[in-house]
Formats: sequence, C-alpha cells, structure tokens
Amino acid sequence: MAFKLHPRLAADTTLIGDFRLCRALLLNDSRYPWVVLVPRVEAVTEPFQLSETDQQRLMTESHAVLERMSNHYGADKMNVAALGNVVSQLHVHHLARFEGDATWPGPVWGQGASVSYAAEALAEEVETLRVLFLDLLQV
Amino acid sequence: MAFKLHPRLAADTTLIGDFRLCRALLLNDSRYPWVVLVPRVEAVTEPFQLSETDQQRLMTESHAVLERMSNHYGADKMNVAALGNVVSQLHVHHLARFEGDATWPGPVWGQGASVSYAAEALAEEVETLRVLFLDLLQV
Repeated sequence: MAFKLHPRLAADTTLIGDFRLCRALLLNDSRYPWVVLVPRVEAVTEPFQLSETDQQRLMTESHAVLERMSNHYGADKMNVAALGNVVSQLHVHHLARFEGDATWPGPVWGQGASVSYAAEALAEEVETLRVLFLDLLQV
Repeated sequence: MAFKLHPRLAADTTLIGDFRLCRALLLNDSRYPWVVLVPRVEAVTEPFQLSETDQQRLMTESHAVLERMSNHYGADKMNVAALGNVVSQLHVHHLARFEGDATWPGPVWGQGASVSYAAEALAEEVETLRVLFLDLLQV
C-alpha cells in the first residue's frame, strides 16, 4: 500500500494522526474547526472505489469525527463533503458550523480568504483533537 | 415513522422515487446532474443520528448513486456532501462534475443562479434516473 498524501493537502493541513483507515488532518483555517480524513490507500478518488471493508471503515471514522466535533464544539450544524475538484485524491471534509460564522449559511469552499492559526493556537487545537480522537488513533 | 419532506427541498426538486431508506430527488438545476437523497426518517439532521442499520443503508444507497452517476454521465469528479445550513433535515447531495462546468472547480452551492430544466427535459432526466436506479426503487 503505497499511500502518499497529495502535496497540496500536506501544505494546507497539520497532522493529527492516523486512524485505522484514514489520516486525520487539521485544515489550517481558524475560521472553522475543520478536520480532513484521507483514506491511506493508493489512487482512490471516489468513495465507491474503496473495498467494501474500507467503505465501512471510512463511514465509521467519518461519523465518529462528526459526532465528536459536534459535541465538543457545540456546532449548530456539521458539514461533511468529498469534493476533490482541485485535489482528486479522496479526502473528506468535516466542519463544525455556527450561525454567524464567516460564511454562514453558505459553504466554506471558495468563500473568502482562509485565516491561518497562530503557531500556539495551532498546536493547542491539534492537541485538543488528539484527545478527542484518542481511541481512534493508531499507536 | 412520520417522515415529511421539508417544503424547501420539495420546492427545489422532482421525485425520482423511494429507495429502501432514502427518498431520491432530482434537484431542478440543469447546470449539473444533481441527485439528493433524504433518509425517510423523522427529525434527523446529522448522519450519526441514524440507527446503525440506517447509517449502513445510507452509505450503500449513496455510494450506488455516486457510482452509477459517475459511469452514466462520464463525470470528471463526483461531489458528495451533507451540509444542511439552510435546511437542517438530513439530505445528501450527489453531483456529477465536469471540467468547465458552470462553477468548476468551485463548489456548486451559493454560486450563480440555478437554471431550471424545461418541462420536457426534466421529465426525460427523471426517467433516465429511474432506469439508472431501477433495482434500488421500492415498487
């Protein structure tokens, strides 16, 4: 399994850790709590191209991320999406949305400029997510 | 199970039919092949709120729709998303995207004005999708 994270995804994110199937990443845009899951398999661009086992694992990991983020951040709504028009490597966005956030009720993609975390805030946010996902992370 | 489709979703779509879990709808925007699945359960806004059985069914139905649309339309990329910032009733968007389509490579939500189908084209598109999803439809 020669998984390699797309350089654009690598540039835009910070590693949280690896789940059983997916690499979990924090997207570096402090406007929203934003976690990206990337199945650690080669050359897959659409969810239905995964094996049945991996489709199941992706759903389980994705729903766990949604539920924990929803509860932890007290989100008004979670957004989940696999788009990939720019970077085709399969990756799934998970966002906690709030009434009155930067682009509410619009989508987050292609809306305004991202706001990078300060270094300390980024480290804190990654640590928070590591604790939130602790039992999902491979050691 | 007192499922009732949100009036906004009803107004923006045409019925394809009911799958085992979801109501399948064609979104009335001829810029993109655009199918919306709505689990026919009451008061669910997030996928993780579904029973485990229904989470599984939603994934199976969603991935079937993605794969068949991808093949039928020869899409460059499929987009799948559950947002719900405007209409919180859980609904999942499935879009066939093409390089050079109206908003490529951007997202479709909140971008430009939708272009309604002409009546005949709408009827044809719904019939095409009924054939494409024939074995998924409840009779």
